[in-house]
Amino acid sequence: MDTLTSHDIAMLFLSLGILLAVARILGEIAQRMHQPAVIGELLAGILLGPTVLGAIAPEWSAGLFPLHGVNAIALDTISTVAIVLFLLVAGMEVDLSTVWKQGRIGLKVGISSIVIPFFIALGMAWIFPELMGRHLDADPLIFSLFLAIAMAISALPVIAKILMDMGLYRSDLGMVVISAAIFNDLVGWIIFAVLLGLIGDSTGNGNHILLTISLTLLFAVFMLTLGRWLIHKTLPFVQAYTRWPGGELSFALVLGFLGASLTEWIGIHAIFGAFVVGAAVGDSAHLRERSRVIIDNFVSFIFAPIFFAGIGLKVNFMTHFDLSLVVVITLVACICKFSGAMIGARWGKMAVQEASAVGSAMVSVGTMGIIVGMIALEAGIIQQTLFVALIVMAIVTSMISGPLMRMVLRTEKKQELQALLSQKLFFQPLEASSCRGVIQEMATAVCAIKALDLKTVSQAVHAREDALSTGIGNGVALPHARIEGLQSSVVAVGISEKGIDFDAPDGKPAHVIFLILTPADDPRGQLEIVSRIARLFSSPQMAERARENTNFTDFLALVQTGTGV
Amino acid sequence: MDTLTSHDIAMLFLSLGILLAVARILGEIAQRMHQPAVIGELLAGILLGPTVLGAIAPEWSAGLFPLHGVNAIALDTISTVAIVLFLLVAGMEVDLSTVWKQGRIGLKVGISSIVIPFFIALGMAWIFPELMGRHLDADPLIFSLFLAIAMAISALPVIAKILMDMGLYRSDLGMVVISAAIFNDLVGWIIFAVLLGLIGDSTGNGNHILLTISLTLLFAVFMLTLGRWLIHKTLPFVQAYTRWPGGELSFALVLGFLGASLTEWIGIHAIFGAFVVGAAVGDSAHLRERSRVIIDNFVSFIFAPIFFAGIGLKVNFMTHFDLSLVVVITLVACICKFSGAMIGARWGKMAVQEASAVGSAMVSVGTMGIIVGMIALEAGIIQQTLFVALIVMAIVTSMISGPLMRMVLRTEKKQELQALLSQKLFFQPLEASSCRGVIQEMATAVCAIKALDLKTVSQAVHAREDALSTGIGNGVALPHARIEGLQSSVVAVGISEKGIDFDAPDGKPAHVIFLILTPADDPRGQLEIVSRIARLFSSPQMAERARENTNFTDFLALVQTGTGV
Repeated sequence: MDTLTSHDIAMLFLSLGILLAVARILGEIAQRMHQPAVIGELLAGILLGPTVLGAIAPEWSAGLFPLHGVNAIALDTISTVAIVLFLLVAGMEVDLSTVWKQGRIGLKVGISSIVIPFFIALGMAWIFPELMGRHLDADPLIFSLFLAIAMAISALPVIAKILMDMGLYRSDLGMVVISAAIFNDLVGWIIFAVLLGLIGDSTGNGNHILLTISLTLLFAVFMLTLGRWLIHKTLPFVQAYTRWPGGELSFALVLGFLGASLTEWIGIHAIFGAFVVGAAVGDSAHLRERSRVIIDNFVSFIFAPIFFAGIGLKVNFMTHFDLSLVVVITLVACICKFSGAMIGARWGKMAVQEASAVGSAMVSVGTMGIIVGMIALEAGIIQQTLFVALIVMAIVTSMISGPLMRMVLRTEKKQELQALLSQKLFFQPLEASSCRGVIQEMATAVCAIKALDLKTVSQAVHAREDALSTGIGNGVALPHARIEGLQSSVVAVGISEKGIDFDAPDGKPAHVIFLILTPADDPRGQLEIVSRIARLFSSPQMAERARENTNFTDFLALVQTGTGV
Repeated sequence: MDTLTSHDIAMLFLSLGILLAVARILGEIAQRMHQPAVIGELLAGILLGPTVLGAIAPEWSAGLFPLHGVNAIALDTISTVAIVLFLLVAGMEVDLSTVWKQGRIGLKVGISSIVIPFFIALGMAWIFPELMGRHLDADPLIFSLFLAIAMAISALPVIAKILMDMGLYRSDLGMVVISAAIFNDLVGWIIFAVLLGLIGDSTGNGNHILLTISLTLLFAVFMLTLGRWLIHKTLPFVQAYTRWPGGELSFALVLGFLGASLTEWIGIHAIFGAFVVGAAVGDSAHLRERSRVIIDNFVSFIFAPIFFAGIGLKVNFMTHFDLSLVVVITLVACICKFSGAMIGARWGKMAVQEASAVGSAMVSVGTMGIIVGMIALEAGIIQQTLFVALIVMAIVTSMISGPLMRMVLRTEKKQELQALLSQKLFFQPLEASSCRGVIQEMATAVCAIKALDLKTVSQAVHAREDALSTGIGNGVALPHARIEGLQSSVVAVGISEKGIDFDAPDGKPAHVIFLILTPADDPRGQLEIVSRIARLFSSPQMAERARENTNFTDFLALVQTGTGV
């Protein structure tokens, strides 16, 4: 019986633990720098793989992440399961009804953003093969087709995340972009599946290719029509007759696994099956939000980081780094995607500014480009230098997409409450025992730290307080004012043990006091901060818990997690 | 590079999909029959492995679940990760403060439940070697020691699962059992480690064994004291400075993986480390409920079934089934474990009834015996017949453990609202348009179906309704009555499109009407049902959604899942 030995098991969990830890830490750092987490996760693999750790301590890198033997198989198994689950989740995010609703423009952007990059990249790969990094042995047609797809495919999860971060996800603009990306993903994956069918055909027998292509199309069409309907009809039975939420979770995963197996057997990659099954399952209105969240959280925070970090382990990014290739690939991708999507949006009669925003959003090739590149490397279509160039291109396009949109739309970054809070502006315990006294105490400290004029600030806050008291109930008060000449919003937090009477509607004294100063020329900032705090403290327990917490970190943890239920 | 081929991947996901599907379906059926889900999950493996599927279609079974080659390694990897995660969750459920509180008794039960079975089994194996299935070539002492361990060790995961399924996990009784099982496991694994050292130690050097024991104790003591404190102090930082709930999830899993690696390296099993880490993490009051739920759901419903089903795949249970051996082993195990734990509990001054419940809970030998058995099998100390007997013993002890406890504690099965609802008693749409009319309409139908006297029932319900109307608001009304001579509670559901005025406090008409009839001699039944429904319909959306649902299954799904958030 072939099983893992004790040594294999010890090494397996050591490598998983280290890989997950480094990937998540760098992912979090990337997010703090307003970049997609996937960039940090990829970097973790580059650090732990042959590129960095392998160069410093080869025996460590090779021992932790071996390329041969039982543990290589074990790590490959986990990474394969991880990518299948990631694509299942990515599929579940696809809202098919959105595509139908946004129909016209979304479809036009989708078509144009896949057709234009596809043919430009195809032409360039065909005409300038060396420039585009074609290896001498590679079949020109297959190579060109592959590069065309790698340039044409978009990264729905990354694009969705960028739009969410900008608060544009549910806007008309966001929905055009999302429906275009869904269309792009669906069509892109089907074309890619067909291409994989072409490669798998070593006999040169056309029947086999035809069979693969027909089965692929049959599977996709079946799952997105009849299969989708069957899943929608079956879900209530699963919910009614199994333990909740276990039945639904297993149902989604079993279908995902079987879909993955089927498409792998057809001759295209397993992830295509998981993606299409995810789209079919996620589309059902019967699927409960909680199941979605459980699968999404476990996969996004555990499996996805392991997979993306795993990519960096496969190749030495230093020795296979070809600057000119990287620049060419990245430039071609940016120009193709931007112009393709923008032309589509103009074709759909969008204004120039909005069309440019759509183009900027669609620039991100992100995760999907990385996955396509990895499969191509494994299938021997591309060499390691082009693989490295594709990964860098995916990272760069994901990084510039958000800033580009912000530039085009001239929007400010959304003010996150967490980012405004700081240790220095956290006062505990407050000394004063009256409303006016607390305001004076906090204003004095804030003005000293932020170098503001105390008289202006305290007058403005008191005037606002006198007009209408700012106790919002549940033990919270929000004294605030707009300050002429202030550069950016300032939020200070004070905790009062005794409780201060801020004349709240529920009559309770305030224990948590936020002093909010916003620039006079930013009418929305104040409203955003106030409504965020009000939402956060919508239950009475929150102020209680805030009062119990003895330091800033505990308070910040509370703001981040709410009551954690 | 050693990776999975396309064929490996297709087979891997096919086997995972089938294994998970069958395990979960049989697990759900086991639960419906008031057995732990783990019984159904083990059975799934026996059905899909060499025993049943292997006998009918050997090439299918061997193809799906190979014992050799890449996919054997792949399945073993997933099953190893699964059991480690399951023990992490089991550890997180352990409330250490309760364990310390239960300290004394737990320790006494732990000692007695390991010492008594150990020496009885040792004696029996020494005196009646053939009866206990000793192989002719086997060393008598080592064989006897192994069997003693196999009988003395407890199955913490299975015991935990039985207690969770019975809702006793967090009770005092449950914590006595769990703390005893923790002690039992700790000591059991150390003795086992010593034995493995004895066999593996050809040089006769005792240093290695001593080192293993010291490191094991050091790890356990460190994690449950200083390590636990460090985790408690670190969690707020993780929550404050990472995305929620991803940071916390990754933190728990990374520590679990590293703990597993460490204990495997020390020379005891990886699951011990995961369990101890889980106990340390789960003990922190800072750990948010939502993270706990996400990890628990994903592991209990996905990983655990895959692991437990995997056990049944390893051996042919039919050809190696020796009835007399199975009976002897099972009887000896039951008697030893029950009396050992019960004597310990009495020693700890527990009442006879509670002590018997502790004895019943500790009867389950489960997975740990199987692991010990497998190592013995591989070392040639026992034969497959004894291995099969050990697994049957594990299943039987796990099966009788719950019912035995229920019998001893004389607990009623909880009345689940879901179990009372049925297609026949679901009326949609209701015809009547008044409160009296609806009650008459539903009572008439219910009495016809349940063969009750219509006059008695309708008079009782009307009288109750006249005394105080039963509209509870949010579109729900609960007309009810206690009926003399009724054997068990009856709940009928009617959906009214128009809405019926039941004089609810919020003034809204009722669209969902529950007619609740309970036996006159069951004072708690009515209260339980009424409060369950009131909780379920505490938000206005529920009645809206119930009204939209067009059939009984959809309605039942709604009751099972709530609004699913």
